[in-house]
Amino acid sequence: MSVLERLKAAGVTLPEARPPVANYVPFVITGNLLFISGQVSTGPGGLIKGRLGEGMTLEDGQAAARVCAVNLIAQMKAALGDLERVQRIVKLGGFVSAGADFADIPKVINGCSDLMVEVFGDKGRHARSAVACPILPMGAAVEVDAVVQIT
Amino acid sequence: MSVLERLKAAGVTLPEARPPVANYVPFVITGNLLFISGQVSTGPGGLIKGRLGEGMTLEDGQAAARVCAVNLIAQMKAALGDLERVQRIVKLGGFVSAGADFADIPKVINGCSDLMVEVFGDKGRHARSAVACPILPMGAAVEVDAVVQIT
Amino acid sequence: MSVLERLKAAGVTLPEARPPVANYVPFVITGNLLFISGQVSTGPGGLIKGRLGEGMTLEDGQAAARVCAVNLIAQMKAALGDLERVQRIVKLGGFVSAGADFADIPKVINGCSDLMVEVFGDKGRHARSAVACPILPMGAAVEVDAVVQIT
Repeated sequence: MSVLERLKAAGVTLPEARPPVANYVPFVITGNLLFISGQVSTGPGGLIKGRLGEGMTLEDGQAAARVCAVNLIAQMKAALGDLERVQRIVKLGGFVSAGADFADIPKVINGCSDLMVEVFGDKGRHARSAVACPILPMGAAVEVDAVVQIT
Repeated sequence: MSVLERLKAAGVTLPEARPPVANYVPFVITGNLLFISGQVSTGPGGLIKGRLGEGMTLEDGQAAARVCAVNLIAQMKAALGDLERVQRIVKLGGFVSAGADFADIPKVINGCSDLMVEVFGDKGRHARSAVACPILPMGAAVEVDAVVQIT
Repeated sequence: MSVLERLKAAGVTLPEARPPVANYVPFVITGNLLFISGQVSTGPGGLIKGRLGEGMTLEDGQAAARVCAVNLIAQMKAALGDLERVQRIVKLGGFVSAGADFADIPKVINGCSDLMVEVFGDKGRHARSAVACPILPMGAAVEVDAVVQIT
């Protein structure tokens, strides 16, 4: 199956790549590495805001992280034209807006990681870090950046 | 205009590259990538401390982020000798010391991003992430690290 | 002295590389760069939990960071087979679980940096960033990820 077919099978409609919210670019290619700016949890209904452990459930957080994955893939499409040029998702940096008692950070970021593996298969299996922040840009629930190996 | 001329036009006097505050080095070159350690907001008057949203204004934060940019450029000068060897600012990682209600994180980090674009032009246009932290080294207001493509 | 001899001299017994706690892989190699997932402070006695400045001392934090270094080295061994293939520790990303008044973040991460230099000598001298987080995965005290140049 192609990446586009797997996206469809996952029920994902790729949005337009989101413009940066400030003075930076959404991605830079250097050699065969694509660096993608941190994508926040902005979905079709707007920005998913909130803080895990303070009124936002794990499931809410995972849905927000999945939206970050969709936005990262939309940037890959914008950068590469053809998603088949993705050779490997190398590294994801996951940031979760969380209260000081919310320790289930890895499970939240799985919302992003799971879609990467679903869509890119073994090429989607990535290294990652996942940490909590007191707040994220515009109050977003989740932000994820990425390093991708490309052809 | 050369990078040095644009630095002058921006009113920036490049300080000596700051020594690390702990057991690490300020930069490492691998292949044609220069990785620069997180630079905190230490200016001519000393460390700019504080927490956004708790007595520190957005403008204060942007000034602190600009100081991080100056320190990053000073490290590029120390690493490369000639700033014309900078081919592209690939990625900035911005960390803002902020209270849990301060959501304007991207605007703060623009203080760093704006100077990069002012000084390096299109080569200064970078991918980035920007998040908040409850506190930063020595109480710094802002910390930014960088990946730079060089010749 | 070989890396293994220096590990012994440092009193380190390398554990099995720890499996990921979620849907990611512990490392990815791209070109001559090895990206290692964030390693938390899980030692022989289990996960070292806590928050610096809230009942956890600087010395406790440094010990936790040293455990992260051991886990990073165990991942290098798993990735490379032979630790002599490490050409340079390029970049460490250090995250410390800390209360809002704990500013000694660099000293904590030195617990990781010191072991890298002890074990890899000049090849262990790295760029790094170090920041605080309100909480880390599973309540860990410290998390560190790494980029390593390899042959």
